[in-house]
Amino acid sequence: MMDVVRINCEELEAFVTTILTRAGVPDHEAIIVADCIVSADRRGIASHGVSRLPVYLAKVEAGSMERATRIEILRESQSAALLSGGNGWGPVAGKGAMELAIEKASRTGAAFVGVRESNHFGIAAYYAMMALGHDMIGIALTNSTPLMAPWGSRQAYLGTNPISVAVPAGRERPIVYDGATSVANRGKLVLASRRGESVPNEWAIDPQGHPTTDPAAGLKGALLPIGKYKGSGLAIMVDVLCGVLTGGLFGSAVGDLYDASSCSGVGHFFGALKVDCFMPVDEFKERVDAFVREIRSLPKAEGVGRIYLPGEIEFEKEEESMRLGIALDRGVLNDLNEVAARYDVRKIGDEKVG
Amino acid sequence: MMDVVRINCEELEAFVTTILTRAGVPDHEAIIVADCIVSADRRGIASHGVSRLPVYLAKVEAGSMERATRIEILRESQSAALLSGGNGWGPVAGKGAMELAIEKASRTGAAFVGVRESNHFGIAAYYAMMALGHDMIGIALTNSTPLMAPWGSRQAYLGTNPISVAVPAGRERPIVYDGATSVANRGKLVLASRRGESVPNEWAIDPQGHPTTDPAAGLKGALLPIGKYKGSGLAIMVDVLCGVLTGGLFGSAVGDLYDASSCSGVGHFFGALKVDCFMPVDEFKERVDAFVREIRSLPKAEGVGRIYLPGEIEFEKEEESMRLGIALDRGVLNDLNEVAARYDVRKIGDEKVG
Repeated sequence: MMDVVRINCEELEAFVTTILTRAGVPDHEAIIVADCIVSADRRGIASHGVSRLPVYLAKVEAGSMERATRIEILRESQSAALLSGGNGWGPVAGKGAMELAIEKASRTGAAFVGVRESNHFGIAAYYAMMALGHDMIGIALTNSTPLMAPWGSRQAYLGTNPISVAVPAGRERPIVYDGATSVANRGKLVLASRRGESVPNEWAIDPQGHPTTDPAAGLKGALLPIGKYKGSGLAIMVDVLCGVLTGGLFGSAVGDLYDASSCSGVGHFFGALKVDCFMPVDEFKERVDAFVREIRSLPKAEGVGRIYLPGEIEFEKEEESMRLGIALDRGVLNDLNEVAARYDVRKIGDEKVG
Repeated sequence: MMDVVRINCEELEAFVTTILTRAGVPDHEAIIVADCIVSADRRGIASHGVSRLPVYLAKVEAGSMERATRIEILRESQSAALLSGGNGWGPVAGKGAMELAIEKASRTGAAFVGVRESNHFGIAAYYAMMALGHDMIGIALTNSTPLMAPWGSRQAYLGTNPISVAVPAGRERPIVYDGATSVANRGKLVLASRRGESVPNEWAIDPQGHPTTDPAAGLKGALLPIGKYKGSGLAIMVDVLCGVLTGGLFGSAVGDLYDASSCSGVGHFFGALKVDCFMPVDEFKERVDAFVREIRSLPKAEGVGRIYLPGEIEFEKEEESMRLGIALDRGVLNDLNEVAARYDVRKIGDEKVG
């Protein structure tokens, strides 16, 4: 059992924002980055939350990532655009790109915007969900640190290249899919390895390319895609859109998030579809509600307590976080407070609040 | 070992076209349908080829599908449109919709077109690949006969809802992904059941919702998605776009392809992204070539002879079909010749040609 501390959402966001500004990040960018990464913690995705802040700052401090994000429009048409993220903050470039996709889609019905020369952008759902308030369906993709082997290979060449799609609903919660194209993430292997546990043999291959239940061997080898060649194909397509089509880095050229001295060169791809260009928004939302209710009330497999729609667990976790505070691992909090001390920011979470 | 007959591609296409026109399908539609389904056989996807012709014609004969496809534009904007397929031929509505997406994308950079009131459209790659000649990336999705259980459920509610993406290359072959969101298709279970073989327990669940190695139990239960909740989420999103957003049928309301008396009400969703709106076409194609070559030359997992890019096996199969004729199962050929006899069309394939 890990030692967990509950921290008030707003307090955590203010804390992160202050650290970022003290680190030289412009105020308006610090607010976006803090909102993005704390939203991951709120939603229960601790792997993409404040635990990454020291990693991001290590890159900034090493000079392999810019403090300020200079977004540049490299190419633009009515329903498409290509941006450079100027090797700045992923969430800042990502938010700007998604806003542009939404603006274009509001005029034409559908639009896509690619970003190159960016950095890790947190959870893909953060951007896909930006479309919801505009009565649009949002799409967000990114390439990432090479960790996964294309099907048939034994080399970690592709990222875990996630796909996120967010769909507005009426009375029901939006449907928000956000999933890596790998079966598991590296963090799960690291954890199992530390605990001396074995893992399902579909998670990873060893350095020879054999499926393994030994997490240490998997960490030396590569992650496996979902559905064998299918997830591999989907991850390849995500990299075509995020890396190849943007003119950015792709495959194993993408930098390692955890290597402070290397530039990431990550690419993203964002899309927005305006519901109203296909059918009246109210009717669509009623239909989404009906779809959600039908799925939720299907007969359950034996032993299953409840059928969850994509994103439903995260929405419930978020409500819990708002009520009780965000559940942070004590180790993550200690790391954050260490970073805070370096920037003369008062530490948080001394008392257990939950 | 099945008894396989080789049939010349053009002969098979002419044969199918003649049967269709004799069945009252307008000439120009018969040509499209024949091209679409024979292209599946050429590419080695026998499950989506001429073996389906008797199934389609049974629907036409039963009056649950129209002989002629009246496409209607229901809603249209610069980068989006919604069509009705008029309960006619899936390939005719699909081709028309993809042409419209390409035309719109050629002006704006990106476009999506939905279709409702359609029927089974063959292989999704047929439409995604239409974008290639226009230097665009093509996307094609469809919902289908409910066969797969959403994660946590034990009911066949979703279709195997495939995703296809086609990417133009330079000297290399295009990258063409086309995969169902289920681990296996129903046909594989039927075949294993007939042969008395067991199947991997990730293919299907029994009627109680337990993973099963018994194909007969799986056929009574439901197919499973790739990557558990991930493939389930992707299949749900495909149905949101094809069924919910088009105003068509979704979930278990979609008709059974094999029930001649029921209308299918299938929906499709097509997209086109114009490469030139992101980067110069020549540069993109060189980058795709580099990506393909990198993946192909990665170190192989032990026991793997070759790393295939998405679509590569199908391109090689197609070349073989062009050279040697299409490999048709004798049983499929017999069924076709029976249908041909009903429409006074001379039968084919009497001599073994390969």
